[in-house]
Amino acid sequence: MYSFKNDYSEGAHPHIIDQLVRTNLIQQNGYSGDDYCIEAKEILRRELDNPGAAIYFVSGGTQANLISIASLLRTHEAVISATTGHIFANETGAIESTGHKVIAVDKSDGKLEPADIERVLSAHSLAPHMVKPRLVYISNSTEIGTHYTKTELQQLSVCCRKNSLLLYMDGARLGHALTAAENDLTLADISRLADIFYIGATKNGGLLGEAIVLPDPTLHPDFDFVIKQKGGLLSKGRLLGIQFRELFRDGLYFRLAQHANAMAMKIAHAVKECKYDMLTVSFTNQIFPILPLHVIEELSTKYDFYVWKQIDESQSAVRLITSWATEEYYVDEFIKDLKRISS
Amino acid sequence: MYSFKNDYSEGAHPHIIDQLVRTNLIQQNGYSGDDYCIEAKEILRRELDNPGAAIYFVSGGTQANLISIASLLRTHEAVISATTGHIFANETGAIESTGHKVIAVDKSDGKLEPADIERVLSAHSLAPHMVKPRLVYISNSTEIGTHYTKTELQQLSVCCRKNSLLLYMDGARLGHALTAAENDLTLADISRLADIFYIGATKNGGLLGEAIVLPDPTLHPDFDFVIKQKGGLLSKGRLLGIQFRELFRDGLYFRLAQHANAMAMKIAHAVKECKYDMLTVSFTNQIFPILPLHVIEELSTKYDFYVWKQIDESQSAVRLITSWATEEYYVDEFIKDLKRISS
Amino acid sequence: MYSFKNDYSEGAHPHIIDQLVRTNLIQQNGYSGDDYCIEAKEILRRELDNPGAAIYFVSGGTQANLISIASLLRTHEAVISATTGHIFANETGAIESTGHKVIAVDKSDGKLEPADIERVLSAHSLAPHMVKPRLVYISNSTEIGTHYTKTELQQLSVCCRKNSLLLYMDGARLGHALTAAENDLTLADISRLADIFYIGATKNGGLLGEAIVLPDPTLHPDFDFVIKQKGGLLSKGRLLGIQFRELFRDGLYFRLAQHANAMAMKIAHAVKECKYDMLTVSFTNQIFPILPLHVIEELSTKYDFYVWKQIDESQSAVRLITSWATEEYYVDEFIKDLKRISS
Amino acid sequence: MYSFKNDYSEGAHPHIIDQLVRTNLIQQNGYSGDDYCIEAKEILRRELDNPGAAIYFVSGGTQANLISIASLLRTHEAVISATTGHIFANETGAIESTGHKVIAVDKSDGKLEPADIERVLSAHSLAPHMVKPRLVYISNSTEIGTHYTKTELQQLSVCCRKNSLLLYMDGARLGHALTAAENDLTLADISRLADIFYIGATKNGGLLGEAIVLPDPTLHPDFDFVIKQKGGLLSKGRLLGIQFRELFRDGLYFRLAQHANAMAMKIAHAVKECKYDMLTVSFTNQIFPILPLHVIEELSTKYDFYVWKQIDESQSAVRLITSWATEEYYVDEFIKDLKRISS
Repeated sequence: MYSFKNDYSEGAHPHIIDQLVRTNLIQQNGYSGDDYCIEAKEILRRELDNPGAAIYFVSGGTQANLISIASLLRTHEAVISATTGHIFANETGAIESTGHKVIAVDKSDGKLEPADIERVLSAHSLAPHMVKPRLVYISNSTEIGTHYTKTELQQLSVCCRKNSLLLYMDGARLGHALTAAENDLTLADISRLADIFYIGATKNGGLLGEAIVLPDPTLHPDFDFVIKQKGGLLSKGRLLGIQFRELFRDGLYFRLAQHANAMAMKIAHAVKECKYDMLTVSFTNQIFPILPLHVIEELSTKYDFYVWKQIDESQSAVRLITSWATEEYYVDEFIKDLKRISS
Repeated sequence: MYSFKNDYSEGAHPHIIDQLVRTNLIQQNGYSGDDYCIEAKEILRRELDNPGAAIYFVSGGTQANLISIASLLRTHEAVISATTGHIFANETGAIESTGHKVIAVDKSDGKLEPADIERVLSAHSLAPHMVKPRLVYISNSTEIGTHYTKTELQQLSVCCRKNSLLLYMDGARLGHALTAAENDLTLADISRLADIFYIGATKNGGLLGEAIVLPDPTLHPDFDFVIKQKGGLLSKGRLLGIQFRELFRDGLYFRLAQHANAMAMKIAHAVKECKYDMLTVSFTNQIFPILPLHVIEELSTKYDFYVWKQIDESQSAVRLITSWATEEYYVDEFIKDLKRISS
Repeated sequence: MYSFKNDYSEGAHPHIIDQLVRTNLIQQNGYSGDDYCIEAKEILRRELDNPGAAIYFVSGGTQANLISIASLLRTHEAVISATTGHIFANETGAIESTGHKVIAVDKSDGKLEPADIERVLSAHSLAPHMVKPRLVYISNSTEIGTHYTKTELQQLSVCCRKNSLLLYMDGARLGHALTAAENDLTLADISRLADIFYIGATKNGGLLGEAIVLPDPTLHPDFDFVIKQKGGLLSKGRLLGIQFRELFRDGLYFRLAQHANAMAMKIAHAVKECKYDMLTVSFTNQIFPILPLHVIEELSTKYDFYVWKQIDESQSAVRLITSWATEEYYVDEFIKDLKRISS
Repeated sequence: MYSFKNDYSEGAHPHIIDQLVRTNLIQQNGYSGDDYCIEAKEILRRELDNPGAAIYFVSGGTQANLISIASLLRTHEAVISATTGHIFANETGAIESTGHKVIAVDKSDGKLEPADIERVLSAHSLAPHMVKPRLVYISNSTEIGTHYTKTELQQLSVCCRKNSLLLYMDGARLGHALTAAENDLTLADISRLADIFYIGATKNGGLLGEAIVLPDPTLHPDFDFVIKQKGGLLSKGRLLGIQFRELFRDGLYFRLAQHANAMAMKIAHAVKECKYDMLTVSFTNQIFPILPLHVIEELSTKYDFYVWKQIDESQSAVRLITSWATEEYYVDEFIKDLKRISS
């Protein structure tokens, strides 16, 4: 069985493991005060073209989301998210648990646009009987594989600033978005357009770790207190610093994401050749082919993946995820099997 | 100007004011340990046909909702509500502020039924990545004037118990529901079918006050601690006891609601005679006629009410609320004006 | 039995009840948008000598405390309070329930001074591993009857502003503090020296109600959202407006507090004549005589009061509270009995 | 410079790193559904002599504490802790942030005993105006190096069960407690006597990771939902499983702690020879010698450690921590320097 179930089935990229081995016994300060964290942050600030950015490393995406939002919002303020947004759909109410409502907007492509924001604002005008929308949460790439163009992000950013809303980007799969075909966004763009975002390593070559970026740290004083309070401050922060240093030292992060995307696109091409439709238009490492049930059944004997959504009585959409670790050999095997079964 | 804007524009029914005057200088225990609270609870338990019920008085509906839900749910548990539900739409995220997600179901009549619950449960099966639905919140009458029949409540109750869900009824306008035409529910039925509910006085003759009923108090130990913690324990609980004693001593509560309903139905009858439609099928004190904009405009010069929802370019639904204090004279005037303008 | 147990054993001052009767059937806007609230706020602003102050009415002290603190603090910020502070000792963890730690300082007189604040700050310097003190909570009069002088409050205010701390005054018994012998503070002083405080009516002539004052409302935007969210927004806010209008229209509030203090001081004088000590030096309506157990026992047969604290094997401190409603006849009876038993 | 500042200055024990290397590219299920977690739990259950125990891995101590307590307590319930307790002193209000008060008891040795619990309970009897103590938090070893004997833990356990209190043990340094001289406790004892506890790896050889143990999982349903909600569920749970499997496979965990203790005791012996006092009586890897200021100053030029507490004008207590990674060579150097400076 080979798994296309997710992008966290393996450990870390060997270069990272190698760095863990090399640095293991060197004494360092705790709580991300170590040399590796310091160096990783310097590298990232160059990548962001933002020498003043504050950067904090935490261990996972739900943690990054809840810490950021709990730090930024007052008690009556709320978040706007697509219904597919990870915080709305898959984090066990983590945001509500910190006291804030998540206002959901149903979007077939998982992406918010200014018109959505305006509609939510106008539906929440009965002050003080309704929560006050304060932060717009987007994922890039989204939970269904789509990604934002530079123009789309600019428009959203303008809309947010006009309406005193903070723009937050969940970058669990930011590498895959930034290396997608036709992507024109850069980390530096995001650093200008978003108020806060995170760069995910767990799903792109790291063992664990997300780098929360505050492009203008004066807006978020005391962020480190909130990290500690919510259980996100690792004693051995070095573990996170080592990984980000290695991932961004010479572009490894982007090469890994590119590989993942290429593997998914190769499968997507084959799906198209077999005349099957896709549930969403994805250029990243998550694709959702709509397949006949007998095809799904037969593929399931050799490959592990999620059956995402029933379409009708004879077909369902499946989710296939590739990663930095996906071996092309198995992708080719999968394609061969798909074509064989479908012919 | 006469107001049909809400059912809390006046003070309290004169019998209640009279009791406040009579009892004013008698020393009593604080925190609902007074004679009036004790007596009111005895009267209510008889009305509920449930001698073991625990009853707590608090000052408002949002408070009753948030105290009850905060007391009953563990941190990862969630509430199911209609999108019209007061906790979802109009309480500034009070429930989320206590840490719990409200899962909303869009219902044109504002009423939940077992199929809705089953759908939510099946959509929340990806444990532990999603909140766990634990409490079903319904309003009776609903925020749009509809009410539950005995059969509907029984079915919901069976569904909840089968699925280990608690059934909670927001009774801000329970009097109006129980005295609606064709209603067949009683307080005693609700005490058997719901796990917790409240009987609202603020909108039916009281100055303020809601009576939270726990039909089986062994399920909710320490409820009084939560009331205190959330700021709901009045030093002079006597104020609440006096009102509920008077409202339920000889059926005043039901007579007041009946009057409110009758006034609304009289207007509804006239609306029908004028050949206008209603947005919802209401037999209680809230009605939502769909009127031409010029009719709304002209009525607005003499009467105060909410324009609820734009229907199209030429008409909107308005909300008219009557109460225990609505004077029939003004209802008749309103009807005369409506007919005149519409003819 | 006559009760000296607390200052909320009776209803409201008859003038207030009279106003409730007179205004009862006049239609008014809900949610404190009524004429009485508007007028009461104007009167209070004059009393505060602060035309720009924002004022909000809520129904109780725990509610006022938790709403204010939840509105002002970010998630990692904490409150400093004396161990006798109501929020620390007697509100069932209401503040912690909104997410904030209360750092307690043990003070025999229940009053905080700058040295206490400095000590707490220096003990909380290990950032980010400790909460960040952000608000100083004081009660005036305190829970043990003492009160702040103008100099003391000034010094505390200077210390808070120097250290970026907010100064909050719990005024559940503010009337008693401001009419105490040797008091030199005014509402206008407090409006200059504190960042937020509330003026309590529940314990000084009202049925219920506290007026939260924000001397500089620009520091606390959206305060009304938090009131609604925490269940503190009464539909019939008129009930609160009527009371504050009456209490402050012509000084009734201060006359009532003065009476309560005078009654307590009369007893205190008798206690001194009997050569008993006091637990605290109080000039307000709460006194804590230390009495032999047999004296306590005999007084208990005719009077209701709390036995506050065991002093040694033969004596305990009791708490005697007087109020606006305390009848001098019973005070004289109590004194007679005390002297008789003690002689 | 050699550091005695903490026990998390290095990476992980080489055996663990080796296992990370070996397993790195094997596909595994996410979220602790991997083979290593499953095997590690089996090994731990044998060690606990409790085949029914539920075990969950999370990444840090603050996280373990807040998840456990948030899962177990209802909104009005509180925790009892020593003032030295990590949750009270050093976790930025993490517990209060989940809504619960931490009631602190001042203890010079950092250890709670039944008399402390009884005192807290009797001081919290004014229901419902005070929080309800529900969980007793102890650390073993404590934050000041002391540890619990079997008898002490048994007495505390009896006291808790008698009073319906849950007993929780913070085991960030449990290995050091269980291998201390004169220790007579075992993991199996703790599994019988505590209701919930965690076994810390971060400070004893792991990169990160704590194993939360629920000896009777029926008492804590849905624990995994709370882990996810609070951001504690790692996608690559394998990272935690690999470490615990290696640490407990053949007793490595205990050998590492023993080494740390031995190094600390060697220094402690030298301190005694130099006639210096200790602040606490510790047999574990944290010791607190009271040294003259000039000795501290001179040692500081070669060694890194915390100056813990000023004792008087001429001496302070310092904190020296040893770990699994502490090299005996540097311990000997330190001792030589100490003796030289002190002679």
